[in-house]
Amino acid sequence: MDQIANVLANRYASNEMRAIWSAEGRIIIERDLWIAVMKGQRDLGLGISDETIAAYEAVRDNVDLESIRKREEVSHHDVKARIDEFCELAGEQQIHRGMTSRDLTENVEQLQVFRSMDLIVKKSCAALLRLAKLAHKYRDVLLVARTHNVAAQPTTLGRRLAMYGEELCYHIEKMEAIMGKYPARGLKGPVGTRVDQYTLFEGDEEKVNALERKVLAYLNIWNSFKETGQIYPRSLDLEVVEAVVQLSSAPSNFATTLRLMAGMELASEGFAKGQVGSSAMPHKMNARSCERICGFRVILNGYLTMASGLSGSQWNEGDVSCSVVRRVMLPDTFFTIDGLMDTFITVLDQMEIYLPMIEQEARRYLPFIATTTILMEATKAGAGREDGHEAIKEHAVATARELRNGTIKENDLADRLAADPRLKLSKEKIEQLIYRNRNLVGMAPEQVDHFVGEARRVGERHPEAIDYQPGAIL
Amino acid sequence: MDQIANVLANRYASNEMRAIWSAEGRIIIERDLWIAVMKGQRDLGLGISDETIAAYEAVRDNVDLESIRKREEVSHHDVKARIDEFCELAGEQQIHRGMTSRDLTENVEQLQVFRSMDLIVKKSCAALLRLAKLAHKYRDVLLVARTHNVAAQPTTLGRRLAMYGEELCYHIEKMEAIMGKYPARGLKGPVGTRVDQYTLFEGDEEKVNALERKVLAYLNIWNSFKETGQIYPRSLDLEVVEAVVQLSSAPSNFATTLRLMAGMELASEGFAKGQVGSSAMPHKMNARSCERICGFRVILNGYLTMASGLSGSQWNEGDVSCSVVRRVMLPDTFFTIDGLMDTFITVLDQMEIYLPMIEQEARRYLPFIATTTILMEATKAGAGREDGHEAIKEHAVATARELRNGTIKENDLADRLAADPRLKLSKEKIEQLIYRNRNLVGMAPEQVDHFVGEARRVGERHPEAIDYQPGAIL
Amino acid sequence: MDQIANVLANRYASNEMRAIWSAEGRIIIERDLWIAVMKGQRDLGLGISDETIAAYEAVRDNVDLESIRKREEVSHHDVKARIDEFCELAGEQQIHRGMTSRDLTENVEQLQVFRSMDLIVKKSCAALLRLAKLAHKYRDVLLVARTHNVAAQPTTLGRRLAMYGEELCYHIEKMEAIMGKYPARGLKGPVGTRVDQYTLFEGDEEKVNALERKVLAYLNIWNSFKETGQIYPRSLDLEVVEAVVQLSSAPSNFATTLRLMAGMELASEGFAKGQVGSSAMPHKMNARSCERICGFRVILNGYLTMASGLSGSQWNEGDVSCSVVRRVMLPDTFFTIDGLMDTFITVLDQMEIYLPMIEQEARRYLPFIATTTILMEATKAGAGREDGHEAIKEHAVATARELRNGTIKENDLADRLAADPRLKLSKEKIEQLIYRNRNLVGMAPEQVDHFVGEARRVGERHPEAIDYQPGAIL
Amino acid sequence: MDQIANVLANRYASNEMRAIWSAEGRIIIERDLWIAVMKGQRDLGLGISDETIAAYEAVRDNVDLESIRKREEVSHHDVKARIDEFCELAGEQQIHRGMTSRDLTENVEQLQVFRSMDLIVKKSCAALLRLAKLAHKYRDVLLVARTHNVAAQPTTLGRRLAMYGEELCYHIEKMEAIMGKYPARGLKGPVGTRVDQYTLFEGDEEKVNALERKVLAYLNIWNSFKETGQIYPRSLDLEVVEAVVQLSSAPSNFATTLRLMAGMELASEGFAKGQVGSSAMPHKMNARSCERICGFRVILNGYLTMASGLSGSQWNEGDVSCSVVRRVMLPDTFFTIDGLMDTFITVLDQMEIYLPMIEQEARRYLPFIATTTILMEATKAGAGREDGHEAIKEHAVATARELRNGTIKENDLADRLAADPRLKLSKEKIEQLIYRNRNLVGMAPEQVDHFVGEARRVGERHPEAIDYQPGAIL
Repeated sequence: MDQIANVLANRYASNEMRAIWSAEGRIIIERDLWIAVMKGQRDLGLGISDETIAAYEAVRDNVDLESIRKREEVSHHDVKARIDEFCELAGEQQIHRGMTSRDLTENVEQLQVFRSMDLIVKKSCAALLRLAKLAHKYRDVLLVARTHNVAAQPTTLGRRLAMYGEELCYHIEKMEAIMGKYPARGLKGPVGTRVDQYTLFEGDEEKVNALERKVLAYLNIWNSFKETGQIYPRSLDLEVVEAVVQLSSAPSNFATTLRLMAGMELASEGFAKGQVGSSAMPHKMNARSCERICGFRVILNGYLTMASGLSGSQWNEGDVSCSVVRRVMLPDTFFTIDGLMDTFITVLDQMEIYLPMIEQEARRYLPFIATTTILMEATKAGAGREDGHEAIKEHAVATARELRNGTIKENDLADRLAADPRLKLSKEKIEQLIYRNRNLVGMAPEQVDHFVGEARRVGERHPEAIDYQPGAIL
Repeated sequence: MDQIANVLANRYASNEMRAIWSAEGRIIIERDLWIAVMKGQRDLGLGISDETIAAYEAVRDNVDLESIRKREEVSHHDVKARIDEFCELAGEQQIHRGMTSRDLTENVEQLQVFRSMDLIVKKSCAALLRLAKLAHKYRDVLLVARTHNVAAQPTTLGRRLAMYGEELCYHIEKMEAIMGKYPARGLKGPVGTRVDQYTLFEGDEEKVNALERKVLAYLNIWNSFKETGQIYPRSLDLEVVEAVVQLSSAPSNFATTLRLMAGMELASEGFAKGQVGSSAMPHKMNARSCERICGFRVILNGYLTMASGLSGSQWNEGDVSCSVVRRVMLPDTFFTIDGLMDTFITVLDQMEIYLPMIEQEARRYLPFIATTTILMEATKAGAGREDGHEAIKEHAVATARELRNGTIKENDLADRLAADPRLKLSKEKIEQLIYRNRNLVGMAPEQVDHFVGEARRVGERHPEAIDYQPGAIL
Repeated sequence: MDQIANVLANRYASNEMRAIWSAEGRIIIERDLWIAVMKGQRDLGLGISDETIAAYEAVRDNVDLESIRKREEVSHHDVKARIDEFCELAGEQQIHRGMTSRDLTENVEQLQVFRSMDLIVKKSCAALLRLAKLAHKYRDVLLVARTHNVAAQPTTLGRRLAMYGEELCYHIEKMEAIMGKYPARGLKGPVGTRVDQYTLFEGDEEKVNALERKVLAYLNIWNSFKETGQIYPRSLDLEVVEAVVQLSSAPSNFATTLRLMAGMELASEGFAKGQVGSSAMPHKMNARSCERICGFRVILNGYLTMASGLSGSQWNEGDVSCSVVRRVMLPDTFFTIDGLMDTFITVLDQMEIYLPMIEQEARRYLPFIATTTILMEATKAGAGREDGHEAIKEHAVATARELRNGTIKENDLADRLAADPRLKLSKEKIEQLIYRNRNLVGMAPEQVDHFVGEARRVGERHPEAIDYQPGAIL
Repeated sequence: MDQIANVLANRYASNEMRAIWSAEGRIIIERDLWIAVMKGQRDLGLGISDETIAAYEAVRDNVDLESIRKREEVSHHDVKARIDEFCELAGEQQIHRGMTSRDLTENVEQLQVFRSMDLIVKKSCAALLRLAKLAHKYRDVLLVARTHNVAAQPTTLGRRLAMYGEELCYHIEKMEAIMGKYPARGLKGPVGTRVDQYTLFEGDEEKVNALERKVLAYLNIWNSFKETGQIYPRSLDLEVVEAVVQLSSAPSNFATTLRLMAGMELASEGFAKGQVGSSAMPHKMNARSCERICGFRVILNGYLTMASGLSGSQWNEGDVSCSVVRRVMLPDTFFTIDGLMDTFITVLDQMEIYLPMIEQEARRYLPFIATTTILMEATKAGAGREDGHEAIKEHAVATARELRNGTIKENDLADRLAADPRLKLSKEKIEQLIYRNRNLVGMAPEQVDHFVGEARRVGERHPEAIDYQPGAIL
């Protein structure tokens, strides 16, 4: 029976993410851990030479799964098989001293998580910079903002984009904060008492503590649990998975709104270069990628339920109920967000805006939206407040009704108001109040500028993000 | 970059389940659908010959993924590639008439779901029959029932097992009921109006309806949606996933309790033949498989969240936000329950019961539990009710305290009560009331008998279940 | 400190549902249980007279919470307080014989669940009949069906409604099926062995079994668990909660689509009588109730997670981890679906359809959608297939582009095609193919008829549903 | 129909938490917001006097719900009713200038959330200090650590408690971090463009920005969203709810393990003062409060699903699908964690440890656990390595078997090993290696010390925590 592929990994995720969670990738990370431990033990006088370490480092990437599998067939012990393989490649026998199985698995999985977070922060940042660019481009394009999916007030298209951008920015900084204090489980032995390292260092507590600090430093992790048991608390996995769910929120909000805009032909997610639409259905530009982003969000919510199902359910110093869950939840969470971010970036790069349609929509709704302003000006021009209010109400209701029953095709409220002597306003004045009234959008343009600045600030911490280009998506 | 394997499929699920969801398996099911449609169209006079159908049937299992992949590279159209492949193999061109892409995908996925349910019902039934056998075997073994994880009242070990058995039985019958009315989406065209089949049959509604009935009959499905849109309502997926979660409940309740019993050395999940425990830790028989069952349950809860995230969130006649979710959720739900059931059956086959430990526990707690009965008998024997109550209270509290502070190692409450003249009961009488008192367990034995009968009744519907033997689990 | 109100109960749910879950309602149901047990015990010769039972029945609805509270202050025992109250009211002392605390609580809660399901089925049925009426009314109104939120193919408005109706119908029948086999926990004593009833009937198993059957019959419940422990399996709660989630799916799909239609001014959820919109914003008819329906769905998904968190996590014969969860989850699930159904019915009663807007939308998209048919007819009329295809493609793409860039306001593809000699079709013919072509909607009208029949069939089982009128919603 | 009470609020939560979420509490917080806005507007020259502000402040706590209700009956406008009430009480008319409905509701709810977090941090800290005290007390009490619920290695009881303490500490600091950057929505107007404040300040952007900074400062909030729309991103609610779920993890891990320990009579959650156990069942000290803690965790997971159901599902600038969800989810999340923490603290105050039982357990398992050490020493003493290993294996397996089949009651492995000449170790030496071997627990005592220091450090930030005493729990 052939293997069943992990659809999230192989269909949606990137090579970089797969490299972290593949069988080979895991072995390389495990070797990184062994090397870091050796370096720490060397520093603390356990008699491990630089040459030994160099020998291991030289073969670190030399991963032969088949050879390991064969060793395991003989020894029936998976960790031993991998130790033997690495040692034989290096021609040394110095790894895994004072370590137990959990010292390996817990830390390796945490390293996978940590490196995945790092990759996702970079991609999120790439998306953020795209959003900033687009927000800046459409900074002043008047757009009808909607609440309850109904036209509500004017905004600008750039400001709508800035709204998602700010949300994304918040979550990027959150994930950076999690990484900054992400506590590794460290070398704690089978139940957490560090008994093996304690024995190895003959009861020298200082050295046991120093070893852990050194190992983490070699791995570029900055924090560790000190009193954890067999396993680190699974609430930490929950924290990570939830931060990933949060990161999906801004893209999903964006994608939802683009799907809505596509339904009104205000925008579309565009096509990849070379892709063509159906000739018979030239209007049909399906927001498939945006739909997929929304789907990814639903998937992540499921992994969040798994994570919360583990958090707080530990028996004693630890049990392995969580094992099978984490084998699924951790990689699949990261494959999902990885695919989501690449999809999001692709949509940002390819989306099309139909400015004439946006303007047409504005012409339909702005007259209604601007009536408050018109009334204010009418009063200034000498109209009676009650008369003015009554006049506006009459015409607005009539216009809306006639638009809906098809009597008229375009909103002619401005004409009606201009023609009504009660309001004492010229058509030109009214049109100016409706269509050439910068104040209607409040501080939308300045909000765009603020967001662009924030995005730049965050982007500077991840200089590689600006040039990030995802591979072609399906 | 190599493929990442689906860990649930490849590590835990069975060949049979993988066969349903593999790339090859999907193609075979798709061909089953095409063949069923042709048969229906033949029956309704669309000029398809038996020979044509036979030609397709003859090559149904001849799946060459590589060849299909190459065709797709040329045509850039996945469905067309599979049609061409099948047609060329058969030397005919009669499949997919009046069908659209959704007519294929929706029904194929439903067939995968349906066949998976069928397999799971069979395995659940195999577990049920094992439980019945064990319940019968331990029908009369006195066991201290616990509530709040504390000794509460006597029961029998067989009755404890029957408790899980009845729950499992209920959920098996539920899944059978779902299968009995599981509605296929059928051939409804792109938005559900059946416009293509309607055109094919030149507006003959009767024939369009008849075609669907026939196709389903050929596929052994008994129901269909009639007014569905582009997609069948995703609440149906929720129903299926939830039924799977329910099926996991009895095994998970059982596994949880076995883990508790293992902690008190009343039982263990045993070892596979040939497997050995650690010589240094001969007491340590880890309930790893039971822990895994509990982990599978947590995974399923995550897929349930995905399913409920889709249910009720459809836009218009359908959108594809659900697509990526279902690609993950549907197969992975079934891989999980498949692995869970095989694990459960394996534990049932290998578990060990430590009867002397169970008896030892009973001796510790039964005297406390039986005091109500003792008081009743003491009164009958002439003791004053208040005196008797006081005497029992004094001795019980003292005994419990001394057991806990280690003054005594065994519960000697019977001796104390016999020695107290206020109770007027001989030690023999008291011991009989405590240790040889069939009434203490109420109808536990009869409950076992009832369950065994029910299990047998359900088992008769699935004769292949009794001999089902899962492969070796990890 | 004042009480905090349950917002779901008091803001959204109906009096009928509150009556089931209120403190008073619970006491009445508990008394129903006691009376049913007495009747069963009377029938089986335990010497309880009809007069005694009548005395209890006469005071069943006489609930004085304050009096019960005072009794509990004295006895510090809640069940005893309620027993004493009921007995004193009746002037008898025959209730609760051979019953334990769990015999009360488990069954009372199940009765609350059962009666809630009954109420919800009735309301769902009321919604179903409304949907059927509307579907029939709009049976033949041409509507552009959308997939990916983009115009896809013609359907009818009635058929769109029938789509939700069929889904609702399926879930109503599912809940009916659950009710039909919903197993009460029955009188099983503290750990499930029925030891108390067994003692009461002096070991006569037949009578113990008969008692349970009789009690359930008096309560109009038709099934029971036989081998359950202290508690019935919580997977049963999961089944119920999930069935409620399923019931919310069709209303939520409907509400989502109505929100989309409102955004395009095709429809609105309307106003309650007397309610007025904003004069300044006459276009703004917010689909607030539909949004609330979607919100209710999200709430229900949360309770589903709670339910799945309990299912399969039982320790031994039972523990009370589930207690606090069920106190929240069970009533709140039913308050939510109750509010949802009343909201849904209200929207169905008040919604407005803007037929001219629907027609206007059709005029925009139908020409694109009908091109396949036009090509077919052009070929029949003598046009070359390749020429025809080319001509259609050219004009369709140009028309779509011009519509989007505002060059034209209305789709004039028909004119362009008529003017193109390559197609050999008159404008009249083309317009007929586009606008007066019954075949475009396939079997949509017949699908409406089918659904209306199904709704009627289900409605006949719930004759009170047709006149059900919810109270005013917020 | 009487109101249905919120069971979480009224049965489990504290007065302090109820005060935040009650109808009165909400009005007071709303008034705080209005006052803060007035102060900001005063500072920025909008002509609001200190006297005016003082007049409002003087009546801030004067909440008359009935009066407000009557006003609303007249005006049919809830916000207006509350404005009028407050103004009439103060004899001024200066609140709510340039504010819209969402400026009120969003910020008020965020203030409720923020103050709830503050309360929960305090309570969590109170629990942390209790844990530290207990960990210190039992720092050196040898305890058998368990993995897979089976004895694994020695630890100390204090160290087990420190394990939960460290986890709790991590989550407290996380919630503090969230509070430190929790962004208020601020005064953004109906769609986020700040148009009303912009108009009020006649286009002076600096003043609009300054106003928001000032308002937040008066409210003791330190951050705000700048580009949010009608609503702040619901991913922020998710962040908060998730942080609450995390906070529940350590208590729930602790409670789970205490339930396990209670099952083996190593500990119990004790009784409240004055509470008595059943005389007939003196062994039965039910860990009901611990079970409740575990139940609270399951509830929180449900609210987490609700929160993730909202995150990322926003339409355009905002919709109110989230409204009903947040009305339930936000208060109920905090009522739950509030009840959980009070329950946790109560258990920590009342729990009982049965040291003799812990020692008895150690005597049963330590000999097995210590065999590795014994072998090492035997080799040093001159035993052959293979012989030693063989001897230990023989005796260990035999001892374990005899313990399980009841042949022996106590672990006599030490005797057997001492009697075996192959090992060359005296009984005294062996007993020393098993029972008086400080090294077996590794660094457990030092880990306790480390945790106690950490708890103290966090505690110093919340000086009121140390004296916090919850009210009596049910």
